[in-house]
Amino acid sequence: MDLETYLQNTATEVNKILDQYYGSPATELSQAANHLLFAGGKRLRPAIFKLAADIICPEKTRDILPAALALEVTHNFTLIHDDIMDGDETRRGKPTVHTLWGEPAAILAGDVLFARAFALICKAGASDRSKVIASQMLAETCEKICEGQQQDISFESRQDVTRDEYITMVTLKTGVLYGASAAIAAVLSDASDSQIEFLYNYGCNTGAAFQIQDDIIDLMAPPEKSGKDQASDIREGKQTLIAIIAREKGIDLAPYRRTLSKDEIAGLITLLQDSGVIGDVQKVAEDMVQSAIEGLSSFRDCPERKILSDLAYHFIQRGY
Amino acid sequence: MDLETYLQNTATEVNKILDQYYGSPATELSQAANHLLFAGGKRLRPAIFKLAADIICPEKTRDILPAALALEVTHNFTLIHDDIMDGDETRRGKPTVHTLWGEPAAILAGDVLFARAFALICKAGASDRSKVIASQMLAETCEKICEGQQQDISFESRQDVTRDEYITMVTLKTGVLYGASAAIAAVLSDASDSQIEFLYNYGCNTGAAFQIQDDIIDLMAPPEKSGKDQASDIREGKQTLIAIIAREKGIDLAPYRRTLSKDEIAGLITLLQDSGVIGDVQKVAEDMVQSAIEGLSSFRDCPERKILSDLAYHFIQRGY
Repeated sequence: MDLETYLQNTATEVNKILDQYYGSPATELSQAANHLLFAGGKRLRPAIFKLAADIICPEKTRDILPAALALEVTHNFTLIHDDIMDGDETRRGKPTVHTLWGEPAAILAGDVLFARAFALICKAGASDRSKVIASQMLAETCEKICEGQQQDISFESRQDVTRDEYITMVTLKTGVLYGASAAIAAVLSDASDSQIEFLYNYGCNTGAAFQIQDDIIDLMAPPEKSGKDQASDIREGKQTLIAIIAREKGIDLAPYRRTLSKDEIAGLITLLQDSGVIGDVQKVAEDMVQSAIEGLSSFRDCPERKILSDLAYHFIQRGY
Repeated sequence: MDLETYLQNTATEVNKILDQYYGSPATELSQAANHLLFAGGKRLRPAIFKLAADIICPEKTRDILPAALALEVTHNFTLIHDDIMDGDETRRGKPTVHTLWGEPAAILAGDVLFARAFALICKAGASDRSKVIASQMLAETCEKICEGQQQDISFESRQDVTRDEYITMVTLKTGVLYGASAAIAAVLSDASDSQIEFLYNYGCNTGAAFQIQDDIIDLMAPPEKSGKDQASDIREGKQTLIAIIAREKGIDLAPYRRTLSKDEIAGLITLLQDSGVIGDVQKVAEDMVQSAIEGLSSFRDCPERKILSDLAYHFIQRGY
């Protein structure tokens, strides 16, 4: 099976189970909690969960699927709270939860999803020992995600963020939940400690690389393709890896902190390409993916391992 | 041991373990998460947890204490988020988390505590089976608390809340966490299902009664004793059990939705006492406490059972 088909199948399966569990919200708050969860999304975390589970013990994958939802639900909880913090009005093409229900209900809707994530781990058909470890892992992961989000916010008031600080931030904010998706699947499938660690590292690295690619897309992707506002990070003076490496090379991006014409953006891209900034940024993401994939070599050769590897490359090769 | 000594000892013990676990916050976000948790508080939920544990199996109490902290940490998470929603500026005599660190960090600080609560359950020295059940119970409890808070908010725009709706709301918002405190202690002590249920009901009922007593205190307690603004609920037109039962009796509180003099408050109290409103409200709380205590009769006769019973009466007899 190719990557695209696998992702589509997983999304269909995840949406079906979500509907079974939460399809009939009994209260207004449940509706608010469901809103973003039922608004689509690529279901990448459940996909990584399933791939990891299939590599370790395919016979168990179906039993532990509720925990795959736990990761998706956790992701959605963080998005609802992040959207409040960032004041964002749309997400997945729909109004954000706080825009529709107000901030108090949106804070609560996020909290409800947070609680459901732990309930879902407990629902997995796995040993109690592995469910306790998985819960602990999810709890630690959530605390790390919060730290990452807090660091991201704190970067807004700084112009001196270092490369290491940036990589730590994206690893916490985005990487660890991918890591936990793979690792929790492994834990619930009774994988060995080293297998769990390889899969955790796979997720952390590819998740961080995904975020770096997002920064590149923000600069490079034409708005008619991405549906987003091109070069918004540069205009807002955001401390992305592009901005950090540009600064390392003595390129001053301050003059670009304003509305930019199409030609000015094209000129900026040429400048950042010719000076090697884009190449260096891509190299960081590629190294992460390389390290993620190397860790997979210790697992048995199977279609799912190949798909995990394809997924990692997809993360840094996608154009939007 | 009398109730007061027991509560003081528990608070000292809880503060000591909190300090061991979280006394050295490594990040700004950890400091924000610690702020309210280290600002005191009566530690009533850990006290109920310990009493329940001591009734079931005193030999195990010490081992499962991390889970007692989980309940206190959960309580503090809900307070941090509630304070944001209500725009409250002080709590326990100190500025609220969002007042000091801003709303985004306060949302995250609450989320961090939420995550830690589950991590603490996993740290308890108990069987994996019981920890999974406890985690599930905590998750369900948190979802209920959110529903209760959402109902409380929705009551603000209504003047027709019924007695049943009010009791459901306070049971969800306040009762279930006391219920979970007693029940999780029982689960981790390997209590029988009926023991768990009796203790859960004890907590739910006393917690709801506690909240009803809070409404009475708001009206009756002189500000020089309570440190609070007397009759603020009536002035704000809040749908408390007092307001609901007054309405049932045909008493219109609308004229009191304004700043009231000391004499006017005294007159209002006399009116509500003479018409039997206060008595009826107290009766509801007493019935709850009675039902809570009846459930305790099936447990062995021990000092802790007596203290649990005293605590329930204390909840509805305290003057502020």
